[in-house]
Amino acid sequence: MSAERLNVVDVKAELKKRAAEVEAYLTDCLHGRNIPERLLASMQYSLMAGGKRLRPALVLAFARLHGASCCCKIMPFAASLELIHTYSLIHDDLPAMDDDDLRRGKPSNHKQFDEATAILAGDGLLTDAFSFMLSCASEGGVPASRVVRAAQAVASAAGSGGMVGGQALDMEYTARNDVNFEELRAMHSMKTGALITASCVAGALLAGAEPPLARCAREYGRNLGAAFQIADDILDVVGDTATMGKPAGSDERQGKTTYPSLLGLEKSRDLARSRAAAAVAALGELDHPEADFLCALALYIVERVN
Amino acid sequence: MSAERLNVVDVKAELKKRAAEVEAYLTDCLHGRNIPERLLASMQYSLMAGGKRLRPALVLAFARLHGASCCCKIMPFAASLELIHTYSLIHDDLPAMDDDDLRRGKPSNHKQFDEATAILAGDGLLTDAFSFMLSCASEGGVPASRVVRAAQAVASAAGSGGMVGGQALDMEYTARNDVNFEELRAMHSMKTGALITASCVAGALLAGAEPPLARCAREYGRNLGAAFQIADDILDVVGDTATMGKPAGSDERQGKTTYPSLLGLEKSRDLARSRAAAAVAALGELDHPEADFLCALALYIVERVN
Repeated sequence: MSAERLNVVDVKAELKKRAAEVEAYLTDCLHGRNIPERLLASMQYSLMAGGKRLRPALVLAFARLHGASCCCKIMPFAASLELIHTYSLIHDDLPAMDDDDLRRGKPSNHKQFDEATAILAGDGLLTDAFSFMLSCASEGGVPASRVVRAAQAVASAAGSGGMVGGQALDMEYTARNDVNFEELRAMHSMKTGALITASCVAGALLAGAEPPLARCAREYGRNLGAAFQIADDILDVVGDTATMGKPAGSDERQGKTTYPSLLGLEKSRDLARSRAAAAVAALGELDHPEADFLCALALYIVERVN
Repeated sequence: MSAERLNVVDVKAELKKRAAEVEAYLTDCLHGRNIPERLLASMQYSLMAGGKRLRPALVLAFARLHGASCCCKIMPFAASLELIHTYSLIHDDLPAMDDDDLRRGKPSNHKQFDEATAILAGDGLLTDAFSFMLSCASEGGVPASRVVRAAQAVASAAGSGGMVGGQALDMEYTARNDVNFEELRAMHSMKTGALITASCVAGALLAGAEPPLARCAREYGRNLGAAFQIADDILDVVGDTATMGKPAGSDERQGKTTYPSLLGLEKSRDLARSRAAAAVAALGELDHPEADFLCALALYIVERVN
């Protein structure tokens, strides 16, 4: 592995630059779609509330890594991952779920609008995400068979056996105080890991990667997703409300089992670092600028907790 | 048009037979998908609560009408329409939306389970629906380009510019007492009409119908959807709770503007009949058993209100 790969200094700036490209697309993508005014405002409110745009960045990076030349063709697909991520945040914040009033430093969607609108904004973002994915075949000129496989990976990761199921387990586990490490790991791999993994795999599939290469995307995604979630749990303990844009210590207040509550802070940090290293290792010796970006990204994800 | 086409006596039995075929698929389709137990129970509860299975029947009928020989290949796609319809009912019944305690004679999903589970069951059904649709290309052997176009029609109809947007307008209009005919018509064409239309169009597209034939499916669906909604409004006035499985007169209690409240019962019946006739006309002189079924179906939909 080259020394360059380990440069995490610039990855924050690079991620920001890539996020801006995604946001340029997101800003307009919902217009002209016959969406009632208040519903549109609610969808836009959460969609444009910031964030790292990590999942679209992963789609685009893996597509480039596997030979996609023009990323404008797959931008609607990349953006759709952000629509799905945004919908999940809106529904997770609802009073019946985590009942969070703040999200990214602003009132959560149901606080800014109302509960019915927030539920519908989530439903709309989720459904429209599939319109954007599928448009890559009909309008974007990506072969339909690739789009189908990539969209299937996303649907399976976001559905009841993936992200939605993970959130259901999270609700169930919040009411229990005997959640063990294996349960916690499995829950997070559904709730957070599956969609991050699917972002990597979808990018590879859209570029026409064959199964062995798509497997490397899956392995990277699985480990990145785990590192990301452990880092998130740690930040909830050591971070502060202003930096995170959401109340610090909310996991503990809600009585949630987390990596730090099970393992302690130091061992959690070790685990996050080792999963990031496994993500880097999954990329093998690929000599490509995007591989360098993805390696640096994995290390950056956990660097935040040090 | 043959006299046979007008036979509405047997269409109820035929629809029931077709619903049973769809239900045989629905019963097992969620198993083995790694869905947490309680979430699965909640999804199954609403999915298997009965209903006419109208949307899957439309997918299958239009696919057969346009030459599909083996409907087992597209059954997952047909079933996905019922998953989407079921999700919409679960979310519509939530306390923040229509706050309905009864659905099809049983406690609504959030009453039987809880609000969080009901929200997630809806999210899961909606997302998994796309898994089922897309599986027709990868496992079912339907050309990927057809599956993409059909799934796009469904996504667009179910999304924020279709069904979700229609529900948002419905919520908005319930709080107003000056909703006019054109607003009511447009709202229902989004909330109910779009998905019924997409079911017809998707069936035609999956069978490889070219645009002019898919246009006949759209025209039939648009009119059937309108007839269906007007009939539903009328039944809310003249029906009784036992037959409908939901409280009669709930529109009036909620202060909703309906076709009967704007036009009166008789003119509403006339309108429903004329939209059903337009659906029949859209099929032209097609000489096919499925055309006979579809004609009888349109007439049966409004016959219920006489």
